[in-house]
Amino acid sequence: MKLASFDGGRIGIVDGADIVDVTDAVSAMPGAWPPVGMLHLIGRFPELRAQLAERARSGPRRPLADVHLETPIAWPNKVIAFPANYHAHVEEMKAGTGLISPFKADGQGFFLKANSSLSGPRDPIVLPDIPGRQIHHECELAVIIGKGGRQISRERALEHVFGYACLIDVVVRGKEERVMRKSYDTFCPVGPWLVTADEVPDHEAIDLRLSVNGELRQHASTRDLIVDIPEMIRMASAVMTLYPGDIIASGTPAGVGPIVHGDEVVIEIAHVGSMTLDVVQGENGGHPVWDKSRTAPDPAAVTAS
Amino acid sequence: MKLASFDGGRIGIVDGADIVDVTDAVSAMPGAWPPVGMLHLIGRFPELRAQLAERARSGPRRPLADVHLETPIAWPNKVIAFPANYHAHVEEMKAGTGLISPFKADGQGFFLKANSSLSGPRDPIVLPDIPGRQIHHECELAVIIGKGGRQISRERALEHVFGYACLIDVVVRGKEERVMRKSYDTFCPVGPWLVTADEVPDHEAIDLRLSVNGELRQHASTRDLIVDIPEMIRMASAVMTLYPGDIIASGTPAGVGPIVHGDEVVIEIAHVGSMTLDVVQGENGGHPVWDKSRTAPDPAAVTAS
Repeated sequence: MKLASFDGGRIGIVDGADIVDVTDAVSAMPGAWPPVGMLHLIGRFPELRAQLAERARSGPRRPLADVHLETPIAWPNKVIAFPANYHAHVEEMKAGTGLISPFKADGQGFFLKANSSLSGPRDPIVLPDIPGRQIHHECELAVIIGKGGRQISRERALEHVFGYACLIDVVVRGKEERVMRKSYDTFCPVGPWLVTADEVPDHEAIDLRLSVNGELRQHASTRDLIVDIPEMIRMASAVMTLYPGDIIASGTPAGVGPIVHGDEVVIEIAHVGSMTLDVVQGENGGHPVWDKSRTAPDPAAVTAS
Repeated sequence: MKLASFDGGRIGIVDGADIVDVTDAVSAMPGAWPPVGMLHLIGRFPELRAQLAERARSGPRRPLADVHLETPIAWPNKVIAFPANYHAHVEEMKAGTGLISPFKADGQGFFLKANSSLSGPRDPIVLPDIPGRQIHHECELAVIIGKGGRQISRERALEHVFGYACLIDVVVRGKEERVMRKSYDTFCPVGPWLVTADEVPDHEAIDLRLSVNGELRQHASTRDLIVDIPEMIRMASAVMTLYPGDIIASGTPAGVGPIVHGDEVVIEIAHVGSMTLDVVQGENGGHPVWDKSRTAPDPAAVTAS
């Protein structure tokens, strides 16, 4: 089943080129703030599933092209991200400038992206106005938590997966806090919808690819993950209670690179779908923190949390 | 006005040793999931304020001691944290082990703590079972966003402050991702309630202190912040849209140190209140990522996002 948010917090089931509105079936209130309708659906999915499937067959449908798709989960508990989780990407970063930690994901752990960075499959990626900085695309599979929990074992981890989506992890390269560099508004496009786990035959062989202006930049399979999906769930839930709707950005393969105004980015994940996003230069986002001529580090200093 | 969450998502106004239940006035639904009742209140506070003040005067009251206080904002959009934001703390970390960045907060920016790490003023701090690691207390003022916005100027920043609370930023020391080390469940006690900004006479002279087992460990004033409150709001909102209920952990002064099973931690912030928290050893939280004999870094490697 493919579940989408659209037209101001409505919820629909995507069936081919159509969408069936099921907002009333999940007690979601369009326009309500904060926008947590999809969380209600995911939290109650086991009991709602049969009813939703029936609605998908018999309910009134509209062409998908006539609605505005939004980010499927706008207000999760958290967006978890695993860095340095494909060997070939680790190698390219050693040779580049985005140096953070001497550990790969299995020794470094995870970080978070801001909920407010989530954007939809039809929203542009808006670049902040910070001259001299490169902004990179990172192609990732989003894993969506269904049943929550803490201290989930590797063996039972897949029982907690609701489904999958495409996710682009956008980042300003630099030495500042990674979370800040990855949390600009529109720096986390997710979509075009959520695909429930039963539609993905093998979580260890999901093909993902990203192209910019028609040129293939990233192409990999989840079989190349350093920390695989069950282990990510085990690791995250060892630390934190996971809730329905939590999003895990599973890391990016090799091929990251800059995006600039006017670019068109396409991400495509097998069994899930694809998103085509425009990149535009915005006017916001500048701040003295980016100007290192102003805040030069003390050469002897190492500071901390 | 002092606003508290209690007894499973109810909302109350604290008046001296009493609490007045105003749950119905803010259309909060106790027990609803996700728990966003206080967000509704904060988002609508300008229109609700007079009615709430009247209820505080005339409504039925109960002794505060008879209710169970909970973390005031359980499901914000985000918990933003500013590291290395007091000079004396930066100096002590240079001499210690928690070395992260060559920049102070004005050059490093901010990170996030997981919403799921939020806990209440009566909840114990539960230490994860990771032998050999120190777990530290960090005494912080929480700044609560009222009116949301993006690209907020320094001059208008205080208009966006709803109020303040006590916040303890608990952290596992080490070289792993800081966000993970700071996001264990119960690693972000906030409370005992929210105090609206009008009750705090000068945001540049808020006294904060933390003691462990009766010994004063941290004592400072917000006048010593490197990035002050208006600048934190400017910086965060340059990057991200801020929403009502967003929590900013403003950084910790000198005096951080380990906590262990059986400790009693007291945080007290002038004009806000105090929280007394037990520290207990938990059984969860272990994970191979903490075992560096297993995941030794490649000496030549520096990996990244």
